[in-house]
Amino acid sequence: MPNVEIYDTTLRDGTQGEGISFSAKDKVKIALKLDALGFHYVEGGYPGSNPKDLQFFDLIKEHKLKNARVTAFGSTRRPGVEAAGDENLRQLVRAGTAVATIFGKTWDFHVKYALQTTLEENLRMIRETVAYLKQQGQEVFYDAEHFFDGYAANSAYALATLRAARDGGAARIILCDTNGGRMPDEIHRVVSDVAREIDVPLGIHCHNDCELAVANSLMAVKAGVVQVQGTINGYGERCGNANLISIIPSLAFKYRVESIPEKSLVELTELSRFVSELANMHPMSNQPYVGGSAFAHKGGVHVSALLKNPQTYEHIEPERVGNRRRVLISELSGVSNLLYKYQELDLGLGIEKEDNKKLLQELKELENQGYQFEGAEGSFELRLRKAFHGYVEPFSLENLKILIEMRDGTVYSEAIIKMNVNGRVVHTAAEGNGPVNALDNALRKALEESYPQVEKMQLSDYKVRVLDEKDGTEAVVRVLVETGDGHCAWGTVGVSSNIIEASWQALVDSIAYGLLRLENQDEDEAGPGAITGVFRGKC
Amino acid sequence: MPNVEIYDTTLRDGTQGEGISFSAKDKVKIALKLDALGFHYVEGGYPGSNPKDLQFFDLIKEHKLKNARVTAFGSTRRPGVEAAGDENLRQLVRAGTAVATIFGKTWDFHVKYALQTTLEENLRMIRETVAYLKQQGQEVFYDAEHFFDGYAANSAYALATLRAARDGGAARIILCDTNGGRMPDEIHRVVSDVAREIDVPLGIHCHNDCELAVANSLMAVKAGVVQVQGTINGYGERCGNANLISIIPSLAFKYRVESIPEKSLVELTELSRFVSELANMHPMSNQPYVGGSAFAHKGGVHVSALLKNPQTYEHIEPERVGNRRRVLISELSGVSNLLYKYQELDLGLGIEKEDNKKLLQELKELENQGYQFEGAEGSFELRLRKAFHGYVEPFSLENLKILIEMRDGTVYSEAIIKMNVNGRVVHTAAEGNGPVNALDNALRKALEESYPQVEKMQLSDYKVRVLDEKDGTEAVVRVLVETGDGHCAWGTVGVSSNIIEASWQALVDSIAYGLLRLENQDEDEAGPGAITGVFRGKC
Repeated sequence: MPNVEIYDTTLRDGTQGEGISFSAKDKVKIALKLDALGFHYVEGGYPGSNPKDLQFFDLIKEHKLKNARVTAFGSTRRPGVEAAGDENLRQLVRAGTAVATIFGKTWDFHVKYALQTTLEENLRMIRETVAYLKQQGQEVFYDAEHFFDGYAANSAYALATLRAARDGGAARIILCDTNGGRMPDEIHRVVSDVAREIDVPLGIHCHNDCELAVANSLMAVKAGVVQVQGTINGYGERCGNANLISIIPSLAFKYRVESIPEKSLVELTELSRFVSELANMHPMSNQPYVGGSAFAHKGGVHVSALLKNPQTYEHIEPERVGNRRRVLISELSGVSNLLYKYQELDLGLGIEKEDNKKLLQELKELENQGYQFEGAEGSFELRLRKAFHGYVEPFSLENLKILIEMRDGTVYSEAIIKMNVNGRVVHTAAEGNGPVNALDNALRKALEESYPQVEKMQLSDYKVRVLDEKDGTEAVVRVLVETGDGHCAWGTVGVSSNIIEASWQALVDSIAYGLLRLENQDEDEAGPGAITGVFRGKC
Repeated sequence: MPNVEIYDTTLRDGTQGEGISFSAKDKVKIALKLDALGFHYVEGGYPGSNPKDLQFFDLIKEHKLKNARVTAFGSTRRPGVEAAGDENLRQLVRAGTAVATIFGKTWDFHVKYALQTTLEENLRMIRETVAYLKQQGQEVFYDAEHFFDGYAANSAYALATLRAARDGGAARIILCDTNGGRMPDEIHRVVSDVAREIDVPLGIHCHNDCELAVANSLMAVKAGVVQVQGTINGYGERCGNANLISIIPSLAFKYRVESIPEKSLVELTELSRFVSELANMHPMSNQPYVGGSAFAHKGGVHVSALLKNPQTYEHIEPERVGNRRRVLISELSGVSNLLYKYQELDLGLGIEKEDNKKLLQELKELENQGYQFEGAEGSFELRLRKAFHGYVEPFSLENLKILIEMRDGTVYSEAIIKMNVNGRVVHTAAEGNGPVNALDNALRKALEESYPQVEKMQLSDYKVRVLDEKDGTEAVVRVLVETGDGHCAWGTVGVSSNIIEASWQALVDSIAYGLLRLENQDEDEAGPGAITGVFRGKC
C-alpha cells in the first residue's frame, strides 16, 4: 500500500471534546511538536466560527515549519449568497493558510433539516466554495460531512456532492463518519466503491461513538484512502475522534505503511503525554501503545513467560513507541514478578532464594491487609531496600496530633507534629484545608530545614479507597499518593483503618523515596560506583 | 447472522487490569447483575492460580441464577503428569461450576519458550485435559491462547491444537488474540478459514493493545463465531479486553444480532457505572454508548441542528442504552430529567415551572461542585423536600471537634459534638476507629435519646472519591454512604475539600432520611392520606 498522509485536527475537532480547550499559545506549541515529528497537516482552527482561532493563525506565521502545512477549517458558503460575499469564507481567506478544508453536506436529510435548502443549491454551494478558495490561491480539501450516513440513505446524491467538490477543484476529498455510527466492513466496502467512482485522492475522518474509529480508519486505508484525519489521544466531541496515536504505529508495524517518518515513532509516548498535559486531562493509563499500563504485566504466568522471552506477551517492543515494560506486584504475582523487579532495579545481586520467598510472602501478607504496590513503586522499592540494603528513613515520628473543629459551617484543621529528623527533635505545627492537607503541610515544615529539596516535591495525586466497604466507617482504607518533582512522578501507599494513619504512611514514603531518588541522581552524576536502578517513575 | 452468546470475564481477566481488584462479595454482586441482564456465561476466577477465587465459587452457590452459567478458568495440565494428578485441575473441579474454561498453547514458539515441552506433548495436554474435565461432568470450553499469532507462525500446528481440543470433547473453541496485536481484516480472514476446518462452535477473545478489540470481535462475529468473550468497560491487562458494553449494542443496533435480550440494553449505562464504582475506577466520560459525554454536544452548529432533529448528530437515541443527551451550555437539557424524578417520587403535583428552573439551577451548581445524586437518592429526595415541602431536619449542629493523636504507632480518635436535637441541646463525645467512625458514633450517641430508632440503622457502605486529583491533599472529596435498616438501604452524599465535613454531610443525610422513611412507613400503615412516594431504596 502507498504512503499515507496524517492530518491532525486536535486543535480544531479535538477541542470539541468535553473539558478540552487550548490557549492560542498552547496550540502553537502543539503545532510545532507535530511539525517536528513530521505530521503532514495541522488543522489550526475554524476562523469563521471562532474568532479566537485567528490569533493562532497569526502566531503560527512567526514560525517556519519544516514538515507540516497548516490548514484552516470552514463550511461551504451559506445558501443563496455569492462565495465572495460570505463572511465565514472571508475569515478563512484571512487566516492565510496554504490549505483550506471545507466541509459540506452529503446527506439529503441534512440538506433539508439542517441547511434547509434544496439539493441542487447544496451542490452549487460545494462547487462554488471550493472553486472560490482555489482562486484565492489556497489548496482546498473537501470534508464530506456524514458521508457514510448519506451514502446509505441516498448513494446517488452522496456521490453527486463529491463530484461537485471535484468539479470545484478539490485536491483531496475526505469521507467523514461524523456521527461515528458506521461499522468497519461497511467503511471498507463504501470507500472501495467511492474510489472507483471519484478520481480525486481520498481521505478518511472517523468518530469513536462505537469504539471503532481506529479500525474504521485502518479499513479505509486498506480500501485506498491516502489521508487519515484524527486527533492526538482521540480527543474530540462526544466519544472523540480517531486516535492518531494508535493509528500511526499500527500502520507502520502491522501494515508496513509509512505515514510520519519511522524515526518519529519513538516520540509517540511523549507526544501523547505532552498533549494531555496541555489539555489538562489525566493520561489514560490503559491507552494502547503509549499508556502507563500498555506494557504492564500482572499475572504470574505472563511474567514468568516474559522473563524467558518478552515476545510471549507483547505484540511489539514497548521501546519502539517510546514506552517501557512494567511488572506489577499483586496477589496474582509469583516469584517471577519479584525477580523481574530485582533485575529492573539492579538490586538482585546476592539475594538468596529463601529471601525471595520470605519477601514475597511478606508482600502477599501486606496485600491481604489491603496494600497495593501497583502504582506505588516508591513504597515497594523502599521495602526492598529495607529488606536487603538496610535502608532506614532519615526521620521518624515521635507523636502527632490533629485537631479539627467545625463551627458555623466553617472547618478548621491543624496538625501538631514532633519528629526526629537526622537526630534532631523538631516540634512544629501547620494548618491546612482538611486534616490530611494539614498533616502534609506540617510534615514538610518539619523537614524543610534539614531537607530543602522537599520544596521541589509536589503532591500531584491523592486517592482514597475504602476496602471492605461493608464495615462502614470502621473500614480499612488505602491511600495512594503520587508525588512529582516537575520531571518524574512516583507513587506510594498507606493502609490503615484510620485514614489519617494511612495518609501518614503514604506521605512519609513519598518524601523518603523522593529524597532517595535525588540522592541517587547526585551519585549518578558523580560517576561510577553509585547505586543504580532507582525506579525512575513516570517521566 | 445467528444469535451470539456473551461470555463475561470481568471477574477473571478484568482483574488483571492495573488497579482493579474485587472482593469476593463484590464479585458476587457483579455476577448477580450480569445474570439479571441475561448474560450467558460469567467467568468467576482462576481457582488454580488464586486460592481467593474459590471463595467466590462457594458464595455464588448460595444464589440461584436465572440466566447465566458460572464458569471457572484454568490451564491445561502440566507437561508429563496425568490430568487427574494435576493440582490446578483438582482446584478447577473443586470450584464445582457447570462449565470449565481451559486455556492451552497454540503457538509453537510458546510451547518451546513458555511451556518448555514438545509440540506433541502439548497436543496431548490439550486433549487429555479437556477429556478429563468432561469426564468429571463439566462442559468444557477451550481457549486457544495466542491463536492468531500462532496461526500466522505455523497454521498447521495451530489447527492441530484446535483438533486436539475437539477430540477431547470441547463444547466451544475460543480463538484468542492474547497479545492484542492483530488487525480486523486478518481476524475476519482467519476466523473464516478456521470455521471451514473445525466443526466445533467458535468463540472470540480479543485484547485492546491496538485499540481494535471491539472491531476484531465484531469481525469475528461476521466470520461466524457464536460466542464473544470480553469484560465490562473493557477492563483487563495492559490496554484491556474487548469491551462488552460497546460490542453488545453494536451487535443489536448495527448488525441486528441478538446477544443479551433487547430489553436489557437500556440497563447498559447503569451496568457500566455499577462495575466502575465497585472497581473504584473513574467512569470514562468519553466511553462509547454509556459515557457521560457520549451524547454531549458542544459545537454551536451541532446543537442548532439537534434542536431541529436529534438524528442529525446522534447515531442512536441515547435512551436505547439508558444514557441521555446533554447539551453543554443549554439550561433546557435537564428539566425533563427533573420532571421524571418528580413523577418517580410522586412529589410533582403543584410544582410551578419557575421552581423547576430554580431547583435545576441549584442542582447543576451542586453537580459542578462534585455532588452526584446517582447512588445518593436519599440526599436528592431531602433536597426536593426542602425545596417544595418545607422539610427541615429535626436536629442541627452547634459545633464539633475531632482530636486525633498518633503516638507509639497507636492512633486515638475522639469526637466531641454539641447539637440541637428537637430544641434540646445535647453535648456529648465518643471514640472511634478513626476520625469518621468517631464522628459517626458521637452523632448516634447525641440522637439516641430522642430517636431510639437510630439504633436500627447501620452504615453498610462508605466510599470516598477524590475529585480533581491534581490538587493533591487539597482536593475536593465526595463521600457516598449507604445505610440500611436490615430490610432496605439508601444512599447519601457529601462533598467538601475537607473529608470530615463531607462525611458529616453524608452521615447527617443518612440519619435524617432514615428517620423520614420510618415516619412515612408509620403513616403508610396508618392508612390513606399519608405522604407517599418516599424512595424505597434497594430492598
